[in-house]
Amino acid sequence: MATKVILPEAELPTHWYNIVPDLPTPPPPVLHPGTHQPVGPDDLAPLFPMDLILQEVSQERFVEIPEEVREVYRKWRPSPLYRAHGLERLIGGPARIYYKYEGVSPVGSHKANTAVAQAYYNARAGIRKISTETGAGQWGSALAFACAQFGLECEVYMVKASFEQKPYRKAMIESYGGKIHASPSTNTNYGRKVLEEAPDTTGSLGIAISEAVEVAAMNADTNYALGSVLNHVLMHQTIIGEEALRQLAMVDEVPDVVIGCAGGGSNFAGLSFPFVREKLAGKMDPRIVAVEPAAAPSLTRGEYRYDFGDTGMLTPLVKMHTLGHDFLPDPIHAGGLRYHGMAPLVSHLKELGLIEAAALHQTETFRRAVEFARVEGIIPGAEPTHAIAQAMIEAEKARETGEEKVILFNLSGHGHFDMAAYQAFVDGKLQDYEYPADRIAKSMKKVPIVAG
Amino acid sequence: MATKVILPEAELPTHWYNIVPDLPTPPPPVLHPGTHQPVGPDDLAPLFPMDLILQEVSQERFVEIPEEVREVYRKWRPSPLYRAHGLERLIGGPARIYYKYEGVSPVGSHKANTAVAQAYYNARAGIRKISTETGAGQWGSALAFACAQFGLECEVYMVKASFEQKPYRKAMIESYGGKIHASPSTNTNYGRKVLEEAPDTTGSLGIAISEAVEVAAMNADTNYALGSVLNHVLMHQTIIGEEALRQLAMVDEVPDVVIGCAGGGSNFAGLSFPFVREKLAGKMDPRIVAVEPAAAPSLTRGEYRYDFGDTGMLTPLVKMHTLGHDFLPDPIHAGGLRYHGMAPLVSHLKELGLIEAAALHQTETFRRAVEFARVEGIIPGAEPTHAIAQAMIEAEKARETGEEKVILFNLSGHGHFDMAAYQAFVDGKLQDYEYPADRIAKSMKKVPIVAG
Repeated sequence: MATKVILPEAELPTHWYNIVPDLPTPPPPVLHPGTHQPVGPDDLAPLFPMDLILQEVSQERFVEIPEEVREVYRKWRPSPLYRAHGLERLIGGPARIYYKYEGVSPVGSHKANTAVAQAYYNARAGIRKISTETGAGQWGSALAFACAQFGLECEVYMVKASFEQKPYRKAMIESYGGKIHASPSTNTNYGRKVLEEAPDTTGSLGIAISEAVEVAAMNADTNYALGSVLNHVLMHQTIIGEEALRQLAMVDEVPDVVIGCAGGGSNFAGLSFPFVREKLAGKMDPRIVAVEPAAAPSLTRGEYRYDFGDTGMLTPLVKMHTLGHDFLPDPIHAGGLRYHGMAPLVSHLKELGLIEAAALHQTETFRRAVEFARVEGIIPGAEPTHAIAQAMIEAEKARETGEEKVILFNLSGHGHFDMAAYQAFVDGKLQDYEYPADRIAKSMKKVPIVAG
Repeated sequence: MATKVILPEAELPTHWYNIVPDLPTPPPPVLHPGTHQPVGPDDLAPLFPMDLILQEVSQERFVEIPEEVREVYRKWRPSPLYRAHGLERLIGGPARIYYKYEGVSPVGSHKANTAVAQAYYNARAGIRKISTETGAGQWGSALAFACAQFGLECEVYMVKASFEQKPYRKAMIESYGGKIHASPSTNTNYGRKVLEEAPDTTGSLGIAISEAVEVAAMNADTNYALGSVLNHVLMHQTIIGEEALRQLAMVDEVPDVVIGCAGGGSNFAGLSFPFVREKLAGKMDPRIVAVEPAAAPSLTRGEYRYDFGDTGMLTPLVKMHTLGHDFLPDPIHAGGLRYHGMAPLVSHLKELGLIEAAALHQTETFRRAVEFARVEGIIPGAEPTHAIAQAMIEAEKARETGEEKVILFNLSGHGHFDMAAYQAFVDGKLQDYEYPADRIAKSMKKVPIVAG
C-alpha cells in the first residue's frame, strides 16, 4: 500500500504557471483559418470570454487563481501524492515511485481543474451558456459539474460511438443539469452536413468540436469551452504540478523521470510544465515523458505542421504534431486519448527536446493497470493506464541498471467509469490496433495547409 | 460549495469503539439455530477467525486498530468532513449542515473500512480464501480490494438480479483478482436446492448469504465475511464517527441531529455510535436518526424478534427488527438497503429509545440527491440519498422554527456506479414501492421461532 503525502490546505497554490515566457524560443503563432495570418483577441471573442483569451496569449509567468475558483478547488484539492510502496515491492529494485492522484475530484478526473476556471470566467463575463464536445465523457461531466457551481447552462456534444457505449455519462451530465446530444446531431449545420454524407457515422471528437463551436459562434449568449489543447487549459492544469513539486519537496525527493499520458496534452502538461521550469532553471534534470496510445500516436508518429483542431475546419490553425484533422482513430478504450493532434505547447516542447514521447498498446497498459490496482488499491482510468505502464517500464529499467531512480507520474482519474474496458481485459478480449495500417488521414497525404 | 474540515493524518484514530459495555442493558444473546441456546466462540469458529469472534463478543470499550490495518486506511483516511455551504444556501434558514464523506476510499464507499480489517485478521489466522455475498456489489468489491492487499483469495456470491443489472461490479471484483458467481448458483447445495424449486429466481441477499456461508463451512481453509449486521462489522465502521467527532470539535460544533442511511446498519452505526457514547455520557444530546427505504422498512415497520440472517436458515438466530428472513424486497435502486433485517445492536438501541428511525421513498431521495449534486458537486451513492434527504427535511424544519440546528450526516459513498438510477430519475421513470401491499413474508405470519 501507498503512503500519502498531504499538502496542507493553506498551501494550496495561489497561481497557475504559464510556461510560455520561460521557453527558449516562442511557440509558433495561431493562424486564422481563412487569412492564414496570426489571430488576435478579437478573432476569438465570439467563442471565449476576454479573461481566457488574455490567458491564451499571456506572457505573465504566474497567473493568480481567483478566490472563487480556489473555493471550489478546496472541495478536493490539494490532491494527494502517493508513494507507491506496493508497486515498488511488486517490481523490486531501487526505484522510488510516486503518483499524483486526480481521481479525488467530484467527477473523478483532472478535467475539473480547468472546467471550474472556465465556468468562472464565463459567468463573470455575463455568459448564459457554454457549449462543448466530449469524447469518452470526462470533460463533458466536468464542465456540467462546473457550470452547476456558477449557475450556467451547459450543452455537450458527445461523440456518438461513446454516447451509445457509455450511457452513464449522459446520466451524470443530466444529473448536474446539463444537456447532451449525440454527435453528429441535427442541431447544427455541420452536424446535418455530416449526417447527409454519412448517415451511419459514429462521429469523432473533431466533428463534435465543430458542432460545439458552431453553437457558440451562432449565439451571442453562448461561449465555447475546450477541455484540452489550448494554452489556457494547460495552464489551469499546472496546479497539479505545482502541488506535486511542493509535496516532493516535503519528502526531500527530486524526480529523475516525470510521466503523464497524453491525448490533447492537458494532464501531461499540468503535471510536467512546473518541472520543465525547474529543469530550465537548472534546479533539477528529470526526463519528462508523454505517453500516448499506439493507436493514435500523434507525438511519436505524426507530423509537426499547421492543422485544424477539428474535422470541420472551423477552428484556427495551430502548429502541432498531428495525424490529420480527418484521422479517425480505432476504438481504443482510452477515449480521452483518441485525438488527432497534440497541444501546440506540448508539441513545441517536443521539438525543443525538452520532453520525450512514447507510445503503448492497450493490452499492455491494462495488464499493468490491473497489477497496479491489486497492490495499490486504486483502479485507474483508461487513459492513465498509459502513464502507469510507462512508470513500471522505467522502474524495471532501474532494476536492471541498479539506479536509484525517482519516478513521478500522474494518475489523472479513477476507472469507475471504465469497467467495461477492464471486463474486456480480464476476459482476454482486449484488442490492439496498429497505426497506420491503412489509416493515414487523407489530409496528411496533401501538402501542408500552411508552409513552415 | 462546501468547506472541508481535514483531520491531520497523525490524528487518525488508533481505536475502534465498541458500544456494548456502555449500554444501559446488554443486547440479547445470539442463539444457535438448532439448540436455541446462546452461541459460544466455538460455534462460530468454522466461519470466522478467533480475533473477530472475540471482537463480536467483546466487552472492551476501545479495541486497538492494528498498525497493518491503519497503514491501509491511510490510503484514504482520515476522510473529509464537509460543511455543506451550497446546500445551506439552497434550503435557506439557520441550519448548519455537515457531512462525512466515505466515497474517497478506493472502492468508493465505507465498506472498505471493515473489509480491510476482516481480510487482515483472516490472513493473520492463516486462512487462504474468504467467501462472501454481495447485493448491489459495494461489499463484494470492497472485500476483493481488501483481499488483494493481504494476498487472500476472494469468492463473491452476487444476487443474480444485481449481477445482471450491474456488470461493472463483476469487472471490478475480477480486476482485483476475485471470483464472482451469480446467486443462486450451482456451486452449493443450497443454491442447487433453490434453483430446483424456482429455476427463474433472481435471487436475494438472504440466499447469497446462505451460499457463501455454506462454502466457508465446507472448506477448512476458507472463512466467511459479512459486510454489515454483526457487532464486529459495526465496530470497524466506528472510525467514521470517531473522526467526525474530532472534526466537529475542530470547528467548535456540537450536532443536534446525526443521520445515516440504514440497510444492515453498518454505515449508520459507524457514524452514530461514538455520538451515542457522548450522549450517554451527557456531553451532548443529539437526535440520532436511521433512514431506511420505504420499500424495506425493517426498523419502522418490522417486528423486533429472533430471526435468521439468511434465507436458508443457516446462520445463528439474532434478535432484530425484521421483515422475515424470506422477505423479498422490491427492486429499489439502493441495493445496499434491500435487506430483511437490521443489525441487532441498532435494533437494540432503537428499543432503548437511543435512536429514531424514518423511512423514505426513492423518488424523494433521488430528487433531493440531484439538488445536492448540483450545489455540492458530489453525486451520492443510491443508499446515502436517504441520509441526504432526511438531512434536508431536518434543515427545512429548522427553517420553519428558526432554530440554529447543527445537522451531521454520513455520505457513505459516491454514485459513479449508480448512474442507471440517476438516468431513471431524470427521465421520470423512477418508481416507488409500497410496503407491505401483499409482501408480508410467510415467516412473519407464523409465531416467532424463539420466544422473547
